[in-house]
Amino acid sequence: MQLPVKLEPDNGVTLQIQLFEAVRNLILAGLIKPGEAVPSTRTLSRQLGVSRNTVLIAYDRLVVEGYLESRPPTGTLVSPDLPDASVSPSMRPNAHISRSSAERQATRHPVLFKGRTHPVANPNRHRLAIDFWVGRPDPHSFPTKSWRRRLLHNLAFASANLTEYGDPIGMPKLRRAIADFLGPARGIKVEPDQVIVVNGSQAALNLVARLLIEKGTTVMIEQPCYQGAAFVFESYGATLRAVPVDDRGADTTHLPDESASLAYVTPSHQYPLGVTLSLERRLKLLDWAWETKAYLIEDDYDNDFRHNGSPLIALAGQDVHGCVIYIGTFSKSIGAGIRLGYMVVPPELVEPARVVKTLYDNGQAWLDQATLADFISSGSYNRHLRRIRRTYLRRRDCLVESLQYNFGEVRLTGLEGGMHVAWHLPPDFPRASLIQQIAEDVGVGVYGLNTGAAFNFTSNNWDGERILLIGYSSVTEDQIRDGIARLARAFQSIRKP
Amino acid sequence: MQLPVKLEPDNGVTLQIQLFEAVRNLILAGLIKPGEAVPSTRTLSRQLGVSRNTVLIAYDRLVVEGYLESRPPTGTLVSPDLPDASVSPSMRPNAHISRSSAERQATRHPVLFKGRTHPVANPNRHRLAIDFWVGRPDPHSFPTKSWRRRLLHNLAFASANLTEYGDPIGMPKLRRAIADFLGPARGIKVEPDQVIVVNGSQAALNLVARLLIEKGTTVMIEQPCYQGAAFVFESYGATLRAVPVDDRGADTTHLPDESASLAYVTPSHQYPLGVTLSLERRLKLLDWAWETKAYLIEDDYDNDFRHNGSPLIALAGQDVHGCVIYIGTFSKSIGAGIRLGYMVVPPELVEPARVVKTLYDNGQAWLDQATLADFISSGSYNRHLRRIRRTYLRRRDCLVESLQYNFGEVRLTGLEGGMHVAWHLPPDFPRASLIQQIAEDVGVGVYGLNTGAAFNFTSNNWDGERILLIGYSSVTEDQIRDGIARLARAFQSIRKP
Repeated sequence: MQLPVKLEPDNGVTLQIQLFEAVRNLILAGLIKPGEAVPSTRTLSRQLGVSRNTVLIAYDRLVVEGYLESRPPTGTLVSPDLPDASVSPSMRPNAHISRSSAERQATRHPVLFKGRTHPVANPNRHRLAIDFWVGRPDPHSFPTKSWRRRLLHNLAFASANLTEYGDPIGMPKLRRAIADFLGPARGIKVEPDQVIVVNGSQAALNLVARLLIEKGTTVMIEQPCYQGAAFVFESYGATLRAVPVDDRGADTTHLPDESASLAYVTPSHQYPLGVTLSLERRLKLLDWAWETKAYLIEDDYDNDFRHNGSPLIALAGQDVHGCVIYIGTFSKSIGAGIRLGYMVVPPELVEPARVVKTLYDNGQAWLDQATLADFISSGSYNRHLRRIRRTYLRRRDCLVESLQYNFGEVRLTGLEGGMHVAWHLPPDFPRASLIQQIAEDVGVGVYGLNTGAAFNFTSNNWDGERILLIGYSSVTEDQIRDGIARLARAFQSIRKP
Repeated sequence: MQLPVKLEPDNGVTLQIQLFEAVRNLILAGLIKPGEAVPSTRTLSRQLGVSRNTVLIAYDRLVVEGYLESRPPTGTLVSPDLPDASVSPSMRPNAHISRSSAERQATRHPVLFKGRTHPVANPNRHRLAIDFWVGRPDPHSFPTKSWRRRLLHNLAFASANLTEYGDPIGMPKLRRAIADFLGPARGIKVEPDQVIVVNGSQAALNLVARLLIEKGTTVMIEQPCYQGAAFVFESYGATLRAVPVDDRGADTTHLPDESASLAYVTPSHQYPLGVTLSLERRLKLLDWAWETKAYLIEDDYDNDFRHNGSPLIALAGQDVHGCVIYIGTFSKSIGAGIRLGYMVVPPELVEPARVVKTLYDNGQAWLDQATLADFISSGSYNRHLRRIRRTYLRRRDCLVESLQYNFGEVRLTGLEGGMHVAWHLPPDFPRASLIQQIAEDVGVGVYGLNTGAAFNFTSNNWDGERILLIGYSSVTEDQIRDGIARLARAFQSIRKP
């Protein structure tokens, strides 16, 4: 017999491998049947015009892998039992043509998950000349030298550590560094045991939701609030109840009477409005949580930047009942690209959180954790914070001045801290999403609530289109002045007369 | 009035900060009331024996932060409105004593999550002289130089990239590198669009479970199988159905007739038994999935190490129906410490998977992804694989010889590939968990199924205690010979006569 095999001497794959694959495919496609003889090595080498050694090597591998059997004196046969091996899709007998996605979807087990998602990356990334994107740390202030030194130091121990699993809830030295940091910086007295290292605060929100939310669980959120939180709660079946935010934070007179399981708040710099929850309301919220048996999730995303006075003590630091789940992140203070955040949970939640975290992902990357731990415990993190705090304060002041210079009296919230302000637009200004478009046309990024991942739960009591988010942390003072001036000029053409 | 304040000159905190905090605490505790006057700076400096400047600075900060108000000519008063600030726990009026954990648990919203977890880290980590732990890559073969070079190269672009969010389903260049790798290495033709980068294969299992499992969903698993998979399915409410594994893999004659939503299989190197799923059964499994509308999850955790012949084409490469969800990891080929894995999903699951992944954690760390992408696309990964394949093959052969030399005829499965073998113990040997203990006593780590994170769903048809897992990838040949000899000597004392 002649085998329908064609070798290509110049295609970059050795002839013996080409031959091995060709014969294997013929067998798997059923073109040579189990028990059937294949040509002798001498015959096949002559047929193909290749050396006999090439055929010998290819046959040998086919024998080793169980496709062929050597049966002297008969010769070489296709194995009666096909090996524990492989078949290429195109060669499979009766191969179906891959179906269209729609048909496949209709015939498969359905996707049970229901949910929607928030924007993560900046839609204008690197596209605009002057981009007031929210929550991005200043790239020029990234602590490259210090980070690099600590990274390299740890890399010396990488081979042993990168080849092993670590603790799913975080490297012990990082959890200790975070616990030590939280005392002076936030007034939270915490044991490293209660600190759980996660892949950013979004992962913390997910973990809490997995622990505490099922279909119909009531969750209190601020109105407006961070989309990524509202959507994750929603995806676990939560019934959301919104409490409006005013200049003193979430209005606690609107807290529901009923028992809630969870309330999600951003007390130090409300997202997106930037206001600070007043002391009176903090105490009221803590009492409410105690009375209704709720856990409070405190998302303290940018409390490192407190422009007036020292950093605020966190709600978790004021909590005597142990009802606060504190979420912190390094995405704002160092950068979102390192994907490290943490949560501090009351003692009774440590063990359940460990189980959920382990089932999630077996823990975070070793090198990033080791580097961050050293960065914090050496004091470099605090030095870095002091440096960028000064930078952000100057930028905030420059932004406020630029807005006043170009637009006169402006109503801003969120000045006390953080990395962005919310501009409450005068009634004669266009709506925020239109301003966002106009600004883009002149190379400037300013953002409406929706683009900035803010969630507007109900629209009956106020209009999210009257608020514009302006981040100032990743733009220089020159850019701020230029950007706001550009915005003002662009306005001239469209503002109502 | 005299303030009940005591400063400690040598406690490492400046006197002005001590004074600021002391006065603030008195105010927050209600010991000085709103509207009440505080002593003049002159009076207080005399009372405390500190310079007047110290008091001036402390008062100034209290004024700036809104605790005090300066009212000339009256003097300085406690603010009628307390500031939007902080109270320390011990100072809070009517502070409750922190309750015991049990009482707290009883009074809080209950934890709704139900689940249990697999062991992640080696319980004997660095404690035993010779540790045949399963699935740990050889630390001495970690590609330190190449990894370090690529890490440093990328670090030059770190400040811009580490301060931003990336794509939640993975860096485009990494997804392309993985797609390009999968063609020649696994026979999977895939577009980068279908590749989703995750935090190790455990995260992929979780993501699939979130998409496809709800209470009562039937999931087929192998018996025995990997605990981390079974437990995550269980935690989402799955009803598990087990198919027994024999020498040719999962016995497809036991596949349920009913419609299942999902089947979890490890075709190339079954975990824990190490057997390879036969071609006949692969085709049967694919047909069954098509007929019952199930998705197949192929967990291809250590297919990079194929000792006999070339790497197996994956089930996903044989799948013409688009019903396979393929899971790959770098935890075995590079190291679990980098926490990077991936999944390849059919086109209709890409968008739902993106939503789940975004709600989970907003994506993976930038530097690790960039480094891995370069490592793969430069060819270094393939060179690394060739090198460690040779090492592991030698170690496997050494292990088999040592076992035969010390114990005579031994029945092993899992020889064809991977990083461990399963020793099916003779009837006159003690049970696996006892052998594990005896071995530990002589400084040797060998593992029963449970310690090795293998899940024994039903115990009626076979006994997991008759199997011992022996990993050979992170022990040298000398250690292998020594370790197995130690084990044999330890046996002398306890084996039945």
